[in-house]
Amino acid sequence: MSMKQYLLTPGPTPVPDRVLLAMAQPVLHHRMPAFSKIFNEAVEGLAWIYQTAGRPIILNGSGTAAMEAAVVNLMSKGDTALVAHSGKFGERWVELCKAYGIATVEVKAPYGDAVDPAAIDKALTENPGIKAVFMQANESSTGVRQPYEAVAKLVHAQKDVLLVVDAVSALGAWDIPMDTLGIDALVTGSQKALMLPPGLAFIALSERAWARQQKSDLPKYYLNLATERKAQQNGETAWTPGVSLIIGLREALAMLEEEGLPAIFARHDALARATRAAMTAAGLELFARAPSPTVTAIKAPKKADGTVIDTDALVKHLRGTYGVSIVGGQGSMKGQVFRVAHLGYYGPFDILTVCTALEMSLKDLGCNVELGKSVAAAEEILSAWRKQAKADASAAKK
Amino acid sequence: MSMKQYLLTPGPTPVPDRVLLAMAQPVLHHRMPAFSKIFNEAVEGLAWIYQTAGRPIILNGSGTAAMEAAVVNLMSKGDTALVAHSGKFGERWVELCKAYGIATVEVKAPYGDAVDPAAIDKALTENPGIKAVFMQANESSTGVRQPYEAVAKLVHAQKDVLLVVDAVSALGAWDIPMDTLGIDALVTGSQKALMLPPGLAFIALSERAWARQQKSDLPKYYLNLATERKAQQNGETAWTPGVSLIIGLREALAMLEEEGLPAIFARHDALARATRAAMTAAGLELFARAPSPTVTAIKAPKKADGTVIDTDALVKHLRGTYGVSIVGGQGSMKGQVFRVAHLGYYGPFDILTVCTALEMSLKDLGCNVELGKSVAAAEEILSAWRKQAKADASAAKK
Repeated sequence: MSMKQYLLTPGPTPVPDRVLLAMAQPVLHHRMPAFSKIFNEAVEGLAWIYQTAGRPIILNGSGTAAMEAAVVNLMSKGDTALVAHSGKFGERWVELCKAYGIATVEVKAPYGDAVDPAAIDKALTENPGIKAVFMQANESSTGVRQPYEAVAKLVHAQKDVLLVVDAVSALGAWDIPMDTLGIDALVTGSQKALMLPPGLAFIALSERAWARQQKSDLPKYYLNLATERKAQQNGETAWTPGVSLIIGLREALAMLEEEGLPAIFARHDALARATRAAMTAAGLELFARAPSPTVTAIKAPKKADGTVIDTDALVKHLRGTYGVSIVGGQGSMKGQVFRVAHLGYYGPFDILTVCTALEMSLKDLGCNVELGKSVAAAEEILSAWRKQAKADASAAKK
Repeated sequence: MSMKQYLLTPGPTPVPDRVLLAMAQPVLHHRMPAFSKIFNEAVEGLAWIYQTAGRPIILNGSGTAAMEAAVVNLMSKGDTALVAHSGKFGERWVELCKAYGIATVEVKAPYGDAVDPAAIDKALTENPGIKAVFMQANESSTGVRQPYEAVAKLVHAQKDVLLVVDAVSALGAWDIPMDTLGIDALVTGSQKALMLPPGLAFIALSERAWARQQKSDLPKYYLNLATERKAQQNGETAWTPGVSLIIGLREALAMLEEEGLPAIFARHDALARATRAAMTAAGLELFARAPSPTVTAIKAPKKADGTVIDTDALVKHLRGTYGVSIVGGQGSMKGQVFRVAHLGYYGPFDILTVCTALEMSLKDLGCNVELGKSVAAAEEILSAWRKQAKADASAAKK
């Protein structure tokens, strides 16, 4: 295909050339000092982005593997978990618990809404045996930011209840200070804010969670975090690690450290606000009532004649006609929403590319759309952000 | 470090530049047709190297993850497994079974020996409830080739016993025709003969094994092969796959297909024979009594004064003084053996590099060694192999 392609999906997200080139280096052996040094630097970088004094664990697997690691290491036979969910990724916690025979109390909210901390509090009171609360930081199927901070406060008021947060599409994009908030297990993956290809997953545990891990009797081997912790304290891994991805991870973390956490968070915030403003200016309706800083879900557009456009057809049109890849809806939201990512190695012109491709596509497909209008709305926000960022950088130098 | 480095370990093995560059391409989204095409081509290539009519499953994980997938998908609560082992990787099958509460009957042989098919036959007869036999094709901790062909025959004479073979350090290096032999589950990883960095694991099941999979009641989610099979039949994966590694996999398989199975197997065989001849010519003693085509284990050398050299010190000397990375012994063999790999992207000059680095190192460390002698022994075999390979290629053209 000769058309220039733009990957603007919520994972995999674009990988910087600098990281791609780091990963293209000849492979190192994973039990040698040269690799241990890289591995330890990567773990230190992860601890920085996790904002934890602990050592996050690197797993060779998808984000789902790290989610499974949380369940099988923190729960025991006969335990009950509370799962607070309002989307496909939240439902995965329920499926994982069920696969291991863990009873679940579900606190649901409709797709597009955030879960309700008061309902979680009520369920914890009514079910005193609950051992852990599982939830998302960002529900990327609906573009909803979940209220894990409020839940952390609730959970800490309870006795011996752990808070497990899936931050696969969140960590490194906005401020989630694990230790300060008191999150007990925080999960993420390589292919989102960390700007890597998929393949690695990460999990950090609080001391309280490590104590629980020691008592857990669910079956596990590959995902046994005690085995990994022991190996990783010595700069090795229990099983052969994804060497090239870990070399890339160190490089990606170095780039993120150069940018700095406040700047990273401000960038994601600005891109999210610009996206929402652009979509609204284009006459579209946002799907999430608690919109996230990393992915914006938008309801299916209507044509000038009032008929609704299937969002899968819209996504296909953007890709086929303009080479711009965004994603549609998952599960029961298929065809009914589309999603614009602003997560990871994204800058203002990625968002503007989506805006322009979308304006042209909406026109192609028979919508009433004023070309340039959504772009203008995004530009207002993006230029204000750059101005502020420049001022901040200049102030920091003085 | 400014010294040129040579990675000559049994995994990770060297990755061809062509594969490194393929993996350095910008990442594709895993739910899009362009990736599905690559994914399907990679699966077809795997089926070719597995010599199976089925579709091997691609997992995001280490080889151990695929081993665990075999256990949790093929066994059920209360089942008994026979594990035939004589090394660290064989012992892993026992640990995996125990982690999931599967009873094991162990048929062991001393390190350096192959397991005994007659002993396996006897154990199967004495324990009619055994549901599966777990073993290795190659025990890479000792450099032993295990007799899985003989075991396949035995197992097929029994009713409802599956044969599960870990071929992580074997598949693609010598002829293991899965369907012809009747292997029910065949496991491998990306970082060995398949010439990739670590990060992907593969497992293929026979129809008999798929039938067993449907009945298995052990807990599983991330490694549930039924979920993966359903997704992978449509050119997708259940969980976000290692996109860049799969792009590399297709490239590596294309290179292997260009070489052709007979040439690949002849190359590994020649490199193994050359290594063994060289080590013997250097006055060293081979550790394995059933040596493998992919890794040669050698006993600790003796100095001129009769004292034994710790192999960890030898390995460190090769790396520190000459930049040549080989590996020592694992577990109780630590310090007592060293291992030379000839697995994957290896050619004659890699083996000759090891021979020369070893000759110089043995001299440095005070052994009686005639420089050039082990090299000459290897050269004899390698030149005969090249001559034959050229004649074969020329005959094939006619």
